[in-house]
Amino acid sequence: MKLLSCFSFIKNIRRKGQILAMLMVVFLRGYSQNNILVFQSDFGLKDGAVSAMKGVAMGVSPGLKLFDITHEIPAYNIWEASYRLVQTAPYWPEGTVFVSVCDPGVGTQRKSVVLLTKSGHYFVTPDNGTLTLIAEQLGIREVREIDEVKNRRKNSNESYTFHGRDVYAFTGAKLASKQITFEQVGPKLPNEIVSIPYQEPSFDQGKVKGTIPILDIQYGNVWTDIDKKLFAKLGIKVGDDIHVQVFNDKAKVYEGSVKYVNTFGEVKEGVDVGYFNSLLNFSLGINMASFSEKYKVFSGNTWSIVLSKK
Amino acid sequence: MKLLSCFSFIKNIRRKGQILAMLMVVFLRGYSQNNILVFQSDFGLKDGAVSAMKGVAMGVSPGLKLFDITHEIPAYNIWEASYRLVQTAPYWPEGTVFVSVCDPGVGTQRKSVVLLTKSGHYFVTPDNGTLTLIAEQLGIREVREIDEVKNRRKNSNESYTFHGRDVYAFTGAKLASKQITFEQVGPKLPNEIVSIPYQEPSFDQGKVKGTIPILDIQYGNVWTDIDKKLFAKLGIKVGDDIHVQVFNDKAKVYEGSVKYVNTFGEVKEGVDVGYFNSLLNFSLGINMASFSEKYKVFSGNTWSIVLSKK
Amino acid sequence: MKLLSCFSFIKNIRRKGQILAMLMVVFLRGYSQNNILVFQSDFGLKDGAVSAMKGVAMGVSPGLKLFDITHEIPAYNIWEASYRLVQTAPYWPEGTVFVSVCDPGVGTQRKSVVLLTKSGHYFVTPDNGTLTLIAEQLGIREVREIDEVKNRRKNSNESYTFHGRDVYAFTGAKLASKQITFEQVGPKLPNEIVSIPYQEPSFDQGKVKGTIPILDIQYGNVWTDIDKKLFAKLGIKVGDDIHVQVFNDKAKVYEGSVKYVNTFGEVKEGVDVGYFNSLLNFSLGINMASFSEKYKVFSGNTWSIVLSKK
Repeated sequence: MKLLSCFSFIKNIRRKGQILAMLMVVFLRGYSQNNILVFQSDFGLKDGAVSAMKGVAMGVSPGLKLFDITHEIPAYNIWEASYRLVQTAPYWPEGTVFVSVCDPGVGTQRKSVVLLTKSGHYFVTPDNGTLTLIAEQLGIREVREIDEVKNRRKNSNESYTFHGRDVYAFTGAKLASKQITFEQVGPKLPNEIVSIPYQEPSFDQGKVKGTIPILDIQYGNVWTDIDKKLFAKLGIKVGDDIHVQVFNDKAKVYEGSVKYVNTFGEVKEGVDVGYFNSLLNFSLGINMASFSEKYKVFSGNTWSIVLSKK
Repeated sequence: MKLLSCFSFIKNIRRKGQILAMLMVVFLRGYSQNNILVFQSDFGLKDGAVSAMKGVAMGVSPGLKLFDITHEIPAYNIWEASYRLVQTAPYWPEGTVFVSVCDPGVGTQRKSVVLLTKSGHYFVTPDNGTLTLIAEQLGIREVREIDEVKNRRKNSNESYTFHGRDVYAFTGAKLASKQITFEQVGPKLPNEIVSIPYQEPSFDQGKVKGTIPILDIQYGNVWTDIDKKLFAKLGIKVGDDIHVQVFNDKAKVYEGSVKYVNTFGEVKEGVDVGYFNSLLNFSLGINMASFSEKYKVFSGNTWSIVLSKK
Repeated sequence: MKLLSCFSFIKNIRRKGQILAMLMVVFLRGYSQNNILVFQSDFGLKDGAVSAMKGVAMGVSPGLKLFDITHEIPAYNIWEASYRLVQTAPYWPEGTVFVSVCDPGVGTQRKSVVLLTKSGHYFVTPDNGTLTLIAEQLGIREVREIDEVKNRRKNSNESYTFHGRDVYAFTGAKLASKQITFEQVGPKLPNEIVSIPYQEPSFDQGKVKGTIPILDIQYGNVWTDIDKKLFAKLGIKVGDDIHVQVFNDKAKVYEGSVKYVNTFGEVKEGVDVGYFNSLLNFSLGINMASFSEKYKVFSGNTWSIVLSKK
């Protein structure tokens, strides 16, 4: 804000053209770039791995602003990494660069890529399924493979097991600080990424079928992939009961009724409800208690849910 | 620092008055505002909720500096949210904006407010008791209700359950970056907030009575609300023993003697001590061990303590 | 980046010498100082202690950039604090200031110091063993004792138990923001620090002996202190088996063979491997599982390991 004023002022002074040109470049770069770099991993916060990545980024450019999604992705859980990206990325400004490191195949032939989405966000990650949901929901504008000769921390070739620090944090920092352009990341790949297969939600014969990609861990709520549009086909209104069945593979784990509410506060403590979560997906919860714990409902690609009118 | 020098310099150049005036505005805004926004919640760090709030804040103003108190407030524990605010806020500079989201009543009629304290700190939060201790210890200068029509993230009206992201982070970011003034938060309310009732500590007949609002979890120390002034009425000196009784409701959980010390290092490992913690409240501990675990003493509004001279 | 351009421009204007001189000072300070302050502690993140330290730092200088190594050092575990520093510090830029607070002796006679290493990093900490590995691996350039009269938060003399906030964060912030020079920290001490004794790894009669300073907690890998140069004396090549014995004191806890690989992806799930970790130390792991859990191998100064050719 203040810098812009400083530059506006400077532009008003008639000086040598070359200085003005130089300033214009600085101005334009400032305009198109916010220097924001956001990290996610399955490293946990108990050791120094995340800090080493941030140190590398600060070494690339101390002007970067570093943030986190979470580092508590369960070890090797690429699906959850994919989900956390899509849960958060849309809320960050255009131009933000994300580095996601959930990399059970580190040191093998999986590709290291940067995805630019149609929404203008960048994702630096091993292409191992982490991009599944982002690619689908934000759209692929372009994918590039990281040139690990150019875009690798100096003197890091002896380390085979920490690409998060030596390649991804380094490349993300270069990109976020505009020391390299997207083109300089490396060669363009076809517009596709490695995708984890999953069942799309559907409506058939008065029933909506979906999956349970994830739990809202802190409160024990159960999040599905059923959105408002699909749910609307059931013709259920706020205040009505919803008939719910939950399956793990073929085994029925839960069958019961929940009240459709906008928010938990509409019912007394202990009442089972269905509602739309902050990502606008249908969810199950209990006011002031854990639906997941009470009914032993968990998440993952073997879990499915069927909703119908009561 | 550097910016100020830049502006001082610019002020020295005799230029068009309007430019100078514009710069003065920028200068003064810079002087009175540090752009610091500090978050607290009961969301945990395992999912993307905190990151979504920070993304929203960065979208409002990339010049903000974002920090955290903790996101490990136990789910729905408004009392602990209140305690963590008062434990930390006084150490942050005047003008800092805090966003606290422990909001079991999200989507119901509890008010969304911003409290400005006499110490010059701002607190953006549901008015559900979270402000109890802050209001008492830092003093209320003014309370405003958030105008959720103006101060709400665009296109977020379909989500009823994440005011932390859609209202509080958004409003806090607007305020911290001076895109709105305190007045533009919304209408002024009376100078009062929703307060959780609790027993004030007291001195009577040679005994000091207090409560145990919280544990020093990491080390197992037991923190009371008894300050140095009240304790002084017992006439106990460093090195003396203190007679201690702890009750949970009416049940006596602990009775014993602890040595009054300035710091743990004054006694051998395993010795029970009484000392004043970093907030200058009387506390119980064991050198290199957990008082709470050893004697099963915990915290909350049913726990009380009585101190007397041995 | 942008500021430099702003100043370069300003330097081109012929103005009063004193303004230019003033700007040059600002410029040079900006050049030599990145304002980065990195915290580590055994406080955990559940309460407000870390936030209070950061608030103090922001009060000293809002231009500082604050980061963390970890705050999950197990309570009082000075050895692990020492290890986390050496795991991360080399990845941060020269001039970075670290504040490490694992301080079981707070309030006693242990010295409060700042170590400047030969690598140009600063470490603000109680001198209680925390600097053991840093001093050895980065080298001591100079040690100074913190003058706790000058370099102590105002009005904090009544608190004896939170030097992290009142002395270390405060002094670290002053130093990182160049409000004090290294000399102004306090009097110079001899070039030595309190060191925790530990066994150096060695090669003898075809066997390499080392210790297990720490686990890679998140994945259950076992990290030793045996580097590539020492390991090379065994003449074992990638793809070969390594004979491994692990002892806790004198008791043999594990004996078996592991395959020497560059990275986990070279073997199937469930295969035991030996590899060099991201710090280039020999480590034991299982592809997609926990070596530590499976074989009950843990870490600390009683744990040792012997490697030989199969």
